This record gives sequence, structure tokens and C-alpha cells, in this order.
Amino acid sequence: MTTLIRGGHIITASDDYIGDILIEGEVVKQIGTNLDVLADKVIDASGKLVIPGSIDPHTHMELPFGGTYSSDDFKTGTIAAAHGGTTTIVDFAVQGKGQTLQEGLDTWHAKANGKCAIDYGFHLICTDFGDDDAPLLHKIMDEEGVSSFKLFMAYPGVFLMDDATIYRVMKAAGPKGGITMIHAENGIVINEIIKETLAEGNTAPRYHALSRPPAAEAEGVHRAIAMSELAKAPVYIVHVSCSEALDEIKAARDKGLPVYGETCTQYLTLDVSCYDEEGFDGFAGAKYVMTPPIRSSSNHQPLWNGLKNGSLELVSTDHCPFFLKGQKELGRGDFTKIPNGGPGVEPRLAVVYDGAMKHGFSLNKWVELTSTAAAKRFGMYPRKGTIAIGSDADIVVFDPEKPVTWGTEREHMNTDYSLFEGMQTKGDVETVLLRGKVIIEDGQYLGTPGEGQFLKRGATAS
Amino acid sequence: MTTLIRGGHIITASDDYIGDILIEGEVVKQIGTNLDVLADKVIDASGKLVIPGSIDPHTHMELPFGGTYSSDDFKTGTIAAAHGGTTTIVDFAVQGKGQTLQEGLDTWHAKANGKCAIDYGFHLICTDFGDDDAPLLHKIMDEEGVSSFKLFMAYPGVFLMDDATIYRVMKAAGPKGGITMIHAENGIVINEIIKETLAEGNTAPRYHALSRPPAAEAEGVHRAIAMSELAKAPVYIVHVSCSEALDEIKAARDKGLPVYGETCTQYLTLDVSCYDEEGFDGFAGAKYVMTPPIRSSSNHQPLWNGLKNGSLELVSTDHCPFFLKGQKELGRGDFTKIPNGGPGVEPRLAVVYDGAMKHGFSLNKWVELTSTAAAKRFGMYPRKGTIAIGSDADIVVFDPEKPVTWGTEREHMNTDYSLFEGMQTKGDVETVLLRGKVIIEDGQYLGTPGEGQFLKRGATAS
Amino acid sequence: MTTLIRGGHIITASDDYIGDILIEGEVVKQIGTNLDVLADKVIDASGKLVIPGSIDPHTHMELPFGGTYSSDDFKTGTIAAAHGGTTTIVDFAVQGKGQTLQEGLDTWHAKANGKCAIDYGFHLICTDFGDDDAPLLHKIMDEEGVSSFKLFMAYPGVFLMDDATIYRVMKAAGPKGGITMIHAENGIVINEIIKETLAEGNTAPRYHALSRPPAAEAEGVHRAIAMSELAKAPVYIVHVSCSEALDEIKAARDKGLPVYGETCTQYLTLDVSCYDEEGFDGFAGAKYVMTPPIRSSSNHQPLWNGLKNGSLELVSTDHCPFFLKGQKELGRGDFTKIPNGGPGVEPRLAVVYDGAMKHGFSLNKWVELTSTAAAKRFGMYPRKGTIAIGSDADIVVFDPEKPVTWGTEREHMNTDYSLFEGMQTKGDVETVLLRGKVIIEDGQYLGTPGEGQFLKRGATAS
Amino acid sequence: MTTLIRGGHIITASDDYIGDILIEGEVVKQIGTNLDVLADKVIDASGKLVIPGSIDPHTHMELPFGGTYSSDDFKTGTIAAAHGGTTTIVDFAVQGKGQTLQEGLDTWHAKANGKCAIDYGFHLICTDFGDDDAPLLHKIMDEEGVSSFKLFMAYPGVFLMDDATIYRVMKAAGPKGGITMIHAENGIVINEIIKETLAEGNTAPRYHALSRPPAAEAEGVHRAIAMSELAKAPVYIVHVSCSEALDEIKAARDKGLPVYGETCTQYLTLDVSCYDEEGFDGFAGAKYVMTPPIRSSSNHQPLWNGLKNGSLELVSTDHCPFFLKGQKELGRGDFTKIPNGGPGVEPRLAVVYDGAMKHGFSLNKWVELTSTAAAKRFGMYPRKGTIAIGSDADIVVFDPEKPVTWGTEREHMNTDYSLFEGMQTKGDVETVLLRGKVIIEDGQYLGTPGEGQFLKRGATAS
Repeated sequence: MTTLIRGGHIITASDDYIGDILIEGEVVKQIGTNLDVLADKVIDASGKLVIPGSIDPHTHMELPFGGTYSSDDFKTGTIAAAHGGTTTIVDFAVQGKGQTLQEGLDTWHAKANGKCAIDYGFHLICTDFGDDDAPLLHKIMDEEGVSSFKLFMAYPGVFLMDDATIYRVMKAAGPKGGITMIHAENGIVINEIIKETLAEGNTAPRYHALSRPPAAEAEGVHRAIAMSELAKAPVYIVHVSCSEALDEIKAARDKGLPVYGETCTQYLTLDVSCYDEEGFDGFAGAKYVMTPPIRSSSNHQPLWNGLKNGSLELVSTDHCPFFLKGQKELGRGDFTKIPNGGPGVEPRLAVVYDGAMKHGFSLNKWVELTSTAAAKRFGMYPRKGTIAIGSDADIVVFDPEKPVTWGTEREHMNTDYSLFEGMQTKGDVETVLLRGKVIIEDGQYLGTPGEGQFLKRGATAS
Repeated sequence: MTTLIRGGHIITASDDYIGDILIEGEVVKQIGTNLDVLADKVIDASGKLVIPGSIDPHTHMELPFGGTYSSDDFKTGTIAAAHGGTTTIVDFAVQGKGQTLQEGLDTWHAKANGKCAIDYGFHLICTDFGDDDAPLLHKIMDEEGVSSFKLFMAYPGVFLMDDATIYRVMKAAGPKGGITMIHAENGIVINEIIKETLAEGNTAPRYHALSRPPAAEAEGVHRAIAMSELAKAPVYIVHVSCSEALDEIKAARDKGLPVYGETCTQYLTLDVSCYDEEGFDGFAGAKYVMTPPIRSSSNHQPLWNGLKNGSLELVSTDHCPFFLKGQKELGRGDFTKIPNGGPGVEPRLAVVYDGAMKHGFSLNKWVELTSTAAAKRFGMYPRKGTIAIGSDADIVVFDPEKPVTWGTEREHMNTDYSLFEGMQTKGDVETVLLRGKVIIEDGQYLGTPGEGQFLKRGATAS
Repeated sequence: MTTLIRGGHIITASDDYIGDILIEGEVVKQIGTNLDVLADKVIDASGKLVIPGSIDPHTHMELPFGGTYSSDDFKTGTIAAAHGGTTTIVDFAVQGKGQTLQEGLDTWHAKANGKCAIDYGFHLICTDFGDDDAPLLHKIMDEEGVSSFKLFMAYPGVFLMDDATIYRVMKAAGPKGGITMIHAENGIVINEIIKETLAEGNTAPRYHALSRPPAAEAEGVHRAIAMSELAKAPVYIVHVSCSEALDEIKAARDKGLPVYGETCTQYLTLDVSCYDEEGFDGFAGAKYVMTPPIRSSSNHQPLWNGLKNGSLELVSTDHCPFFLKGQKELGRGDFTKIPNGGPGVEPRLAVVYDGAMKHGFSLNKWVELTSTAAAKRFGMYPRKGTIAIGSDADIVVFDPEKPVTWGTEREHMNTDYSLFEGMQTKGDVETVLLRGKVIIEDGQYLGTPGEGQFLKRGATAS
Repeated sequence: MTTLIRGGHIITASDDYIGDILIEGEVVKQIGTNLDVLADKVIDASGKLVIPGSIDPHTHMELPFGGTYSSDDFKTGTIAAAHGGTTTIVDFAVQGKGQTLQEGLDTWHAKANGKCAIDYGFHLICTDFGDDDAPLLHKIMDEEGVSSFKLFMAYPGVFLMDDATIYRVMKAAGPKGGITMIHAENGIVINEIIKETLAEGNTAPRYHALSRPPAAEAEGVHRAIAMSELAKAPVYIVHVSCSEALDEIKAARDKGLPVYGETCTQYLTLDVSCYDEEGFDGFAGAKYVMTPPIRSSSNHQPLWNGLKNGSLELVSTDHCPFFLKGQKELGRGDFTKIPNGGPGVEPRLAVVYDGAMKHGFSLNKWVELTSTAAAKRFGMYPRKGTIAIGSDADIVVFDPEKPVTWGTEREHMNTDYSLFEGMQTKGDVETVLLRGKVIIEDGQYLGTPGEGQFLKRGATAS
């Protein structure tokens, strides 16, 4: 089977040209102008951007949280991702309490196996890591293709790991090319603030944000970086939400340390006033209860600047949806019981396109932020993250001019609300190919759940 | 009883003039030129500096540590302090495990009562502080005259308190004018490094320094400051040893936060090569085993700069001596078993004088760093820390030109070695008055142990 | 003649006590409690603050500027200063074009001689300084008691000196204990912006502020500091108005460089909206046309922080008043023709008191900022700037509770408007002594113009 | 004419894959695996890196300087460049005193026309730019394909432009997509230091370095950035040599400003001790007399870090060679008369490869630094700077393992010494194609001088 994408404006993280792409089977075989070939299928991409399939390295499908599960499973969530131009996700397997790393991984394989519409990998959330566990981690890296490990400084009693554990994972993973991902917030102090907040009778969703101030996030980032420096190992800060946290990353990078960070679509676009949204009996703010919380709009420009100058290397979503009815509602009367997270995997590519153009980014930078950087950081490159000879033919044809109005009517994620209801942007996904096969066309999913493959990933990029 | 100090060059934190001081009983009664009074005793101070008695706000007399006790008790230690021109110390009472704050304080009162040659106060080291303990702390402040509370981020299993406890103490103490003092080092990660170090067979004293890198101290400082910011309470960082830690304090102060720091004589003068000192069967480096460790000499200039521009507000000693023989020796073959600390209370005033002059400080700044700042920070001002009408007549007559050679032969601290053996400086203590009474003259102690009084201290300065 | 100030709350830059002050002739003779003396005059200061006479090191009396003269001469201006509790000013002599330094100085002596109500010194504005002029400058320092030299980076064609001249003055003055003062703004680029602004038809007073952005001031400060570093000489940045400029000073001080800065009352209190004040046929904003311009209120907190943490060392006024009618009016239709400056010498002490208290400063810091720091920086200490034995008895009795409403009705400066019309503060000057003689009492000037003496000043403080 | 480069390891700024490249005429026509085509010429690149032709955006061929001319003309210099893998240079045309911009440009066209072995563009050095000259500059941009303008803050009396002129050029060029390049050093103050230095009898080459301290460079960078911010126009800082200057760029980029910088091969590799090189009658240090001077080795790591984290965007050479004999010699006895510059255009690609690998850079980053970034910054992309469909087939086949020993024996630049004599690196140029034609093979130049084309360049990248 061969496919020819003809005449598109091909954009990679560094290139920008008009050309034809010949796909043979699952990979890109040839790129040229006026390729003189007979292909089984021809896609006319003239006037459109042709970009590498987008990669979201931070999703949580079917995650158990606060007594419920995130409402997208690996089928619904990956179909929604595909609609949004995302052809690869890296989700998070969790080492349950009492489980080995391997058992945690196996549990997630069971969830995802046979259900995914797009390719996927797993990071592994460590919740127990002793002095002698480095060999087990190395085995996971070598045999299971899992090379990134996440630890939490937040959520005491649930995910929070002490500094010794974090340091040990860094020491174990780093020298083998693994990378440690940190949810960086001082959960211990936040817990104290939450106790004060509830004691004062403040239970509404907005107090979620007020009890997790930027200084608590920046503290976590600084500490994670310090440990990374001491462990001589790279660190990746997830979901950077505010300039205070970003400044810590900048300072470390200026010293030449291997410190990386991502932000998420919502931190670039929403602002803290969302928690005062009216409706749903005064509980509509629960839609935006996620961690870190949405910050004030004064953080938007610094975060865009950080993406532009490389202090932040990519945009993910931390996709972790819940229904407002029945799920978010668990926290009526006590914001700490609102399941944390929101639906984001679908709108990312287009929303970032819109913002990137408004902030004067190049098209290359947009592709880097939404695809290439994740592929390199998480050991999927050059198979993923680019349009180049031999790479998987994960390709998106993107209409740069088409207007979009966001909202539940349009979105496919399994929830009853949108983070961006009514927001208007320019630029939309038109066609999506996964390893050479068209899976989205004209807004229709044409694929078969289960054809998404698990990706064994390698070392992080230097 | 009246005493007249005649014709001295009187230096306070801001003033610098020639004058006479009339002491009546325990306090300064009059200051003038050619005071026309008949005093019971006249001290001719012409050609000498006349300064407020020095204050060392960081000493550990008779401290239980590592299975032994620091070798100066409140008698020997305060006599040595007096020789050095120090008329007030603030030592640290420890809340023992299972004790209340009050019980900890009582234990230290029992140690010091009736033994001190100079006035003294107590900070209180908290090792247990629950959600409901604020009233107990307030009672200590109101009734016991203890307004400063110290917590450790180091020494896991011994003194280390988690962030919740630190934050709670800050929240309790701050609004009442109390101040929280932090030993800022990430003891958890250091513990991991120590395990690695010992596992590699590295047991000599120098590995003490190598296992406690500057980044671990700077991390602690940053975290302490973040908690202070979140608690809206002041914080005081003890024994800042390196520029990395200092930089965190600077950044906080530039934001206008009530963040204060001290350094100690030894961090301004010694350098890390001390750990390679030969002698004592290869164990002489143990003399310098203290926490934080002595750093590289590249830190000296930044620390002096920090004192000059106000980023650091005073110089203390962390005096905590042990005998090399019999005590430090406990750690032969395992640096973690070397009792931490060294003898410092005596040389401070003169060594800082020498350094301050070499670094172009004013005489006023020298007095501020060694006396006034501590009095204000720790609620002893205006009774202590200055020469002013109504203040305690704690006064030092200081010969600015007299050369000193440091070493055990000269020093009075109860130990078998000196941190500064052979070091030569200029400027020496000549006469010391405690509340109007001469207690040191011509190198002789003329006082009576026990005449030193416990100081009830008030709120920290703004 | 002896005067006794009895029972006041005496505040110096470091002390704070209740006491009596005995003045004999022009100097402080004795300080004590319940001084048992018969004085010719007794002032009851109980319940009042007794502080060193205030020092304003930045005034411009009778300054030729823009075709007119500032409207206070040395008589009216110094009487107004006295009303405000200021007993010393340092004004600026100008080396006119074609004049020697000495001739410039002589011109100003002629203006001030026999007219001043308070003591005064001169800085010397250099407008010509060649390769061989260091000896002339040294002679001025040695024989004339002028140890501070000011150069402008602003006002091209008038005062602006090129970097070579500035550097040469720094090199000449520094090693002898002189200090170079810099008006730091990139006047060259500002000139270009002004041309653009006028070309666009923007001539109203507010465009004065818009054409002198903070970045132009920060640039000047950075450059002045760089030259000071290269010349190995101290530098003093006058009238720092914004956080961008302050940040440059902080960074230099953190490196240990001898870099100092002042701000002025108006930059701490007014905000840029003043330029839109209505009235006077749309020209009322001209009241606030000074250089640098008044900035946005977001600069207030950083400037207070800078004063608190020592990045800025004092508050001056840049007093340079003009009448709105007849003088400021010269710039109707062309903001560049509005004489630059405003009336400030009188309200400083009380306005800074009010602000300092609101920002949690100690009384000591207030005295330091308004008196002591200037005395030390500009070589007048210990004669001026403190209340100590042997110092000039320049003393202010200050009522800390008395409310003040500012405005032309109250103020004595020779102009037709107030910068602070209607502003209410707490704390007022009650009695002012100049070298032992009461010159202000109950709001009345009791002195004799001409009794103010010229001060020969010495080296700058380290 | 078609050429097939078969089986090479193709590296672009973002891609990294094995593939074949088909060149048709002067451009890349197709890229694929096992391309089934008959090409006129086949180059086997298996085991080799295949990269875009290198671009050096900072050279000075045949530059008049100090009474002589740089010793490479456009023929010898571009042949040497080709040997080094460089297929494009951007040299600097100079607007002579009294000339228009156009006349300056024409003069340089005359020098280069018909002589170049590789493609070339011109930046334009402005030495006169008045209030009304923006249209002339726009004409140069629109009609002449020159979109970058350089101004000097150094060399008073020769190239130095005042801040008004610099600001005006920025204002004129920026809105049209032009970029202003700044030689950032405070030449005015440096001139004073030089006078002092010579007056002290210090005339040897090493005093060149001592009279141009890092603080003078950092000052220039800060000022250039401030002007760029005020002009709302991008700025590019040439030849950043030290961490102090780099820090200014970082700070600006962190604020989101369009500030860019380059460093040069020599600042990454040589250190200040070179000025003490023995030989040539004590004058060998003159080899390294260039501006800025070579700095201490402590700057190497910060500069590499700056390249890695994007604070610096590329490596150029500032190639400006002179013969030691007869040219550099002009400055015997007076370092100010030594022609400034050195031979660098040839070794750059390989020396940066060696350093980049040692510092853990990716191959992509190496290509970005030596080719792609310059193409984008200076408006030559996508024609130059990448290997993509439709791009000029400027391609280098690079042997990543071949050892190189640098020195005059190997190098082709027209001078009698090497900056890197004896230095050993790994990785060498094997084959170079210019627009599809092999011009270097096996160390032989196979081209025809004059086939290099002038490049009309467009807007700078965002």
C-alpha cells in the first residue's frame, strides 16, 4: 500500500517547504517535488500544512483518582486525540501500593491493550523505590521500553514520595538514559494550607486554587532541580503553570543543567477567574479543578516566552477528564474531594497553533512544541516526531485558515463539558494518518480501535 | 557604684565619637565630653575603641550530640566568651523527644542556672509541634521570654522536622513577633549521599564535606524561604556557609520578604583544604567537622559582600566544641560518627574585626555585625546591643592595634584544639564590663560564674 | 548658652531610648537620664521623637534651567527646608560652559553666601573635564571641601557628558575619597524619542513621561555602574525612579561593588496618572514634569523594599521648584520647554515618616534614610547626621501623631502649587534646632537668614 | 545534471536519518531510501554524515583596517571556506565616510564580483545615518537584498556610531524585517583605558586584552539591548566573548525580547594565555589580537551552555586574517596599531563539531549552530541552511571519525599562521557540494572562482 500526499506545505521542527511525500506501508519512503509515482491513494494537500502527527506526552486515561476513574478510557481518549491530530500519547502507568514496578506496568498494559486508536507509550509512576531497586528499574528500561519515571511531590498519602525516593530514582534512571519526571509542588505545605482553608469554612472550587499558590509550585521545582543536580541526572518538570516555577527552570538551564519542562494548553490560555464561573448551582468552577490550578493571566506571556526561548520545551495536556455531573460533584462542599483534572487531549494542536501564531512563533516552533520535542525527550525519535525518510508516516494535514469554535458539541472526549467552551481559534485538523493509514478525514474517525501500537521507547535526548 | 569610661573612641552601629560614659549601677547613665563627675571607678579608654558588649546568638553549651556532650558547659563556655568580648549569648534549648516545649526549656534552665559568666537567653529547638500547639508556643513567648524557635531540615531521625511542622511553627510564631530559625540543608538527600559515600568505603573526615554539597544547603534555604513566604512569617537562616545559599537569601530580600541570615566566623576564614590537615593519625580533619562543612575559599568574598550589603545581618559562631581526643575520635573510621561542631565563641569579635577592616568595613558595621543586629533580631534591644542611655552597661574596651596569635595556648574554651591555630590578626579585647562590672581585665576573668542573668527576650525587629 | 532637651524619645540610625540632651553652644555636650543641670533653655520633649536634623543632599536653589531660574533662592528654599525639619542641604554648583571647576563653585558661593537659614554644602556639576584636570579636582576636594561631583547622561547639548568624561571624573575623584554622582538616563536616545513624539504632534505634559521610559533610565544606571567598576571608583545614582533602575543597583551591590543610590519622596508616593490631572487649561500635569518622570505605582513597593534592604540608601528631594504660572507655562504647546522640577524640600521628612511607618520600617531606618546616610555618604559625619557627643546640635523634635494635610496653604516653598496637595499624613515637625539654636518653633521661623554655614565636606563613607 | 548522494546519515537541524538525496540541477529534488534513479553522478556517503553546507555569517574579506587590508580576498577566503565545509558567507560591506549606503554596497560588490568560490551575501556597516535616511535603507532592503545592518559601539573615530544613530537604524530596519547587528563594546571608555595603558608604557600585545575588559563588552551589550527594546526592533550581538555579555542576552531573552547573539570558534576554544605565547621576538601574541580579545578559559563552559540552551544561536568566525609578518607587525611597540583579527573561516565546522560532541550536543544542534540558524536569522532560509526538497543542494559529506591536526600546513587561508596550530580534533570535511556541484573532494578544490553567487536576502526569522 502506498500513499502520496501531494503538494502540501511540509513543516518539520526545522524545515518549511512545498513537496510530495510518498508513504510505503507504514513509513515515509520518499520526499520530493512532483514525485512521479503511482500511489494507491493520493491526498491533495495543496494549500495545507503537512506536519508530523502530534504527540501528547502527558495523558491519564482511565486513571483511578479520588474514588473514581478519569472518564476517558484508552479507546475513547485515543479516538478523541486522533480527532485533534495527535497520533501518539504517552500515558502514565502507576505502581500501586505494594506492587512492583513491573506489576504496575502490567496493569496498564491490560487497560490499553487492544483499545487504542493511536500509538502509545507509558511513563511509570513510582510509588515505592528502595535502596536496591535500581536493577528492577533498569530491567523495565531494557526490556519493557519504558524509560521515563514520574514521581510526585504532591498528594501526600497517595502519590507523594519523599526526597530520598526521588533522588534514588534519579540516580538509577539517569546514567542509563532514563529521565525522571516530577510533579513539583510542596504537597506537605499545601496540605497545611488546605487544613487552614477548610477550617475557615472555605469549601468552594475556587479554594482549590487559593490553597495551591505559585510559591508552593516554585519550591517544588527548585527542589527537584537541586536533587537532579546532586544526582547528576536529567529532570523533566511536568505541567509548569506559572512564571515563578518557570524562573527556576530558566536559572538551572542557564547553568547548563539538563533540566526540562512542559506546560499545558490550559495554562497558556485560561485564567484564574474561571473558578468563579457561574452555573451548576455555583459549582461550575469545579470544571477547572486540576493541579496545579489555573493561574492569573499574568503568567500567559511568560509561559509563551518560555516556549519561544526554549526554557520550556513542549506543550502537553495532562488530559484527565471527569464528568461534572456525578464525578466532579463528589467535591460539592469540599473542594479537596473534587477529582482533579480536565479534558484536554483533543484541542491541543489547534489551540497551540492559534496561540503560537498570535505570539509570533514560526511554524517550525509549533511543530517542535507539539510533536518533535516530545519524541526526542521521550525516546521515540526518529520513528516519531518528524516527517523524514524512514519515520513512521504519522502525518496531519492541517488547514491553517479554518475557524474553530470549541465546545462539547465539537469535541469527542468522554465528558460533559469543555475547558474551552465558546473559544474561537483559527486552524483545524483536516486529515490524520497513523503509520500510513488515514484514521481521520473530514471529522470522521475511520480507524479501528486497537490498531494503535505500544511503543518501546529509548533514551532521552541530550 | 559608678564607673566612668573616659576618653574612648565610642563606636555603635551608627555612631563614632570621642566621649566619656558614666555607668550608674548596671546601666549607662550619661554620655558626654569631659564629664565632670566623681565616679567610683575610672577606666581610661583613650586611644581605644569602646563598643557594646558583643552578642553571639548561636552557641551550644553542653549539647548532647552523637552520644556525647559538647565540651563547654555554661560556665566554661561563658567565661571563654567573656574573654573574647562577648557579654551575651543566646544558646539553644532542645525539646527532647516526648517532651513539651516547656519541658525542653526547663531542662536547659537547669543546665545554665547559676553557672553563667555573662547574660544569656535561649532559642528553643522544636522537635514536635502539632496542629494545636500554637497556644503552647505563645505561652512560651509571653511568659518565658523565648521568642525564637529553631527547626532542622537536616539530621533525619534526630532533629529533622518535616515541612508541615516547620510551616506550623512559622505560622504560630510569626504573627506574635516570634522568629523561626532554620538549619537549612536537605538532610534527606544528604543521607542518601552519605550512604553512597560509605558504601564506596569513604570514611575519612573529608567525606563529611563532600557528602554535604552547597546545592543541598541552597535547596534548604530556598525551601525555608518559600515556607516563610507562604506562612507570611519571618525566617532566619542560621550558619550560611556558601554563595549558593546566600544567593537565595538575596533574591528573597530583593522581593521585600522578611528573610534574614547569619554566617559564622569559620565560614569567613577557613577553607575546605582544612579537611586534609595532616596529623593525629590522619584524622586531624575531624577538627573541622561541623555542619554545614567548611567550603572552598571562593565563598569568602561573597560572604563578606553579603555582610557589607546587608544580605547577611550578623556573624555568630555555632560554638559547639568537642575534644579531638575522646570525642571527635568517635568517628574514626566513620565520618558520620564524628560529633559535629567546633570551638568558636571566643575568637569571634577580634577575628571579625580583623576581617572587617581588611574588607573595608566601617567600625560601625563591625559593631552592628557582632552586637547590635543580634540584639534587634532577637528581641534584646535596646537593653543590649548598643551604648546608649539606659542600656545595660555591657561594654568592651578594644585595642585596635594589638596583634593576636590564635591557638590553644591563648584560648579558654574547653577543648584540646583551636580552629584558628597560628592565625594572626590585629585588634584585641582589653576590658569587658557586664552590666557595669568589670569581668575581664588584662586577660584575667574577674567575675563570678552565676552572675550572668537569663534574658527574657521580646519580638524580633522589623 | 546651654539648652536641655528633656525626656524625649531619642532616635538615631541605630538607637532608640528615652533621655535628656544637653547642648552647650553649638554641639551636643551630654546625653543622660534626668540630667541634673541648669540650662539656659529647656525644651520638654516628652512624648516626642527627638532626631538628628534632616539632611537633603539633592536640592537646586536658584538653578538656571530652560531660560528661567528655579523659584526658591537660598533664602526662601532653606527657610522652607527648616520648616520641614531639614537642617542641612547639599545643593549643586554648576561648572558653566567655559568655566573652570573653581569658577563654577565661586558662582554658587556668591548665590548662597549670607542667605541660608540652615547649613549647606555643594556638590559640583562637571561640564568639562579633560585628561589633565585631575589635579584641579583634587584641589577642590582638599581646599574647598567639595568631595562629590555630578555628571549627567541626560540633557544633550546642556549638561550631558560623554562616557570618557564621566570615566575620567570617576578615576580622578575615587582614589581620593570623592564620589561621582550620576543622573543616569540615556539622553541621546531619549532625544530621538522626543523628536518622534513631537513629530507626531504630541506636545502635552504627559508626553514628557512617555518619552523617558524606564528602560532608558535603567540603561544609564547600568552604564554608570560599568564605568564605576572599570574606574574602580564609587558611584552614586541620583533620583532612582523605577524598579528597572533599582534592579541594576541591586545586581551591582550583590557583586560587592561600591554602588549607591537615592530615590526621592515623589517617586515613592506619586504615580504617573498625575500627568493627566485636570485644570489649568489642560496643563496641570506640568506640575509634575521633572526628570526622571513620575512612574507607575507598581514601582512604589520595589522602591520601599530597596530602601528597607539597603539597595537604596536614602531619600532626597531633587527640589527644583518653578511657578506653574509664568514658568512651567513656558512649555505650553511643547513639553520639552517645561522647566523640569518641582517643590520638595519641605515635606520630605514627614512624608517619609508616614510611608516608613506604613511599610513597617523601624524609626532608626527612618532617621538613617533622611539624615545619617546622607551625612556619611557625603562626608559630613559625625558632625551631622546623628545625635552624639560632639556632634552639631541639629535636632528636630517630632510629634509622631500629629496629622498633616499637605498643600500650598501649609507649605513655605516659593511656588504656586504643591506636589502633594490634599495628601494627608501622620507625624509633624514641632521644633528645629540648628547648631543649638531654635530656628523653628510652633510653625514659626525664628532664625536669621545667613546664619546657615557652608560645610566643608570630607571623604565618602566605605 | 543529477547527483545522488547515497546512504548517508542525513542530519538537519531537527532530523537524523539514513537516506538518499537526489539533486537535480542546483536543488534537492528528492529524498528517500534506496531511490531507484539513474543519476549522472553518485556519491557514496555510507558511514558519513550528510549535512547542509555550512554558513558563516561573519567574515571580513579584503577589509581595510589600520592602514592595511585583511589578507584574504574574496577568492582566497572563499576557497578556504569551501575547504572547511562552508558554502555561504555573509561578509560586511562598509559605508565609507561620506558615502551613501548604496555606494558602500557597490564598493563591496566590486570586490567580490566574479571571485567567489561559494555563495555570499553582504551585511552593511553603517557609518552615517541621519534622521531622514530610513527610505534609503528600505530601498537597500527591497532592491539590493541586504537586510542586516551593523553598527559599532567600538573604534571611536573609525566605526563608532553614537546611540542616536544606532537607535535610528534599529527603528528604520526593524519594522521591515531587517535586523541590526551590534559590535557591543564601550569604545569610548576603552579608549580612556588604552590611553592609561600606553601612558604606563604597556605596549605589548597582551595589553590589547587587558585594555578591553569584559565589563566594557557587557556594558555595550546591555545598552544595545536597551536601545533595541526602546526601538521595538530586533538586535543581534556579534562575537560574544564572555559570560558577562552572555548574561545580558539571557536576561533579555527571558523577558521575551527579540535579542540574538553569536559567538565565534576562537572564544569557545582559546584562552587569554595565548597573548603570552613566546616567539616572533616576543610578539607572537599579536596573532590573537582581535576584538573582543580572547578571554579566560572560565568563559568556555558558559558559552557552550549558552549555545546549548539557545541563549546564543550560532557560531561564526569574524574571519579577518592578517599576516604576522608585515601586517600584525605594524603594532610592534604599540598594540593599538596591530591590525585586529585572525584567520577562522576554514576550521569552524570541524572545530565546532569536535567541541559540540565533547559537550554532549546532538548532531542536530551542531547543524543548527553552523548552518540553519544563520540561514534563518539572515533571511536565506529555506534556500540555504537545510537539506530539504527545493533547497539549494549545498551539502557537506562529513567523516565523523577522521582526526585532524590544525595548522598552517593544512589550512588554506591566506596568512602565515594558524589560530589553532597543533590542536587536534576529530571529524573532517570530505566532500562539499555547492548548488549540486562538487567543489571540494579529497581535500582538493574542484570549483571555479566566480561561480559563487550573490544572495539577495529577506527578512530575519521570528
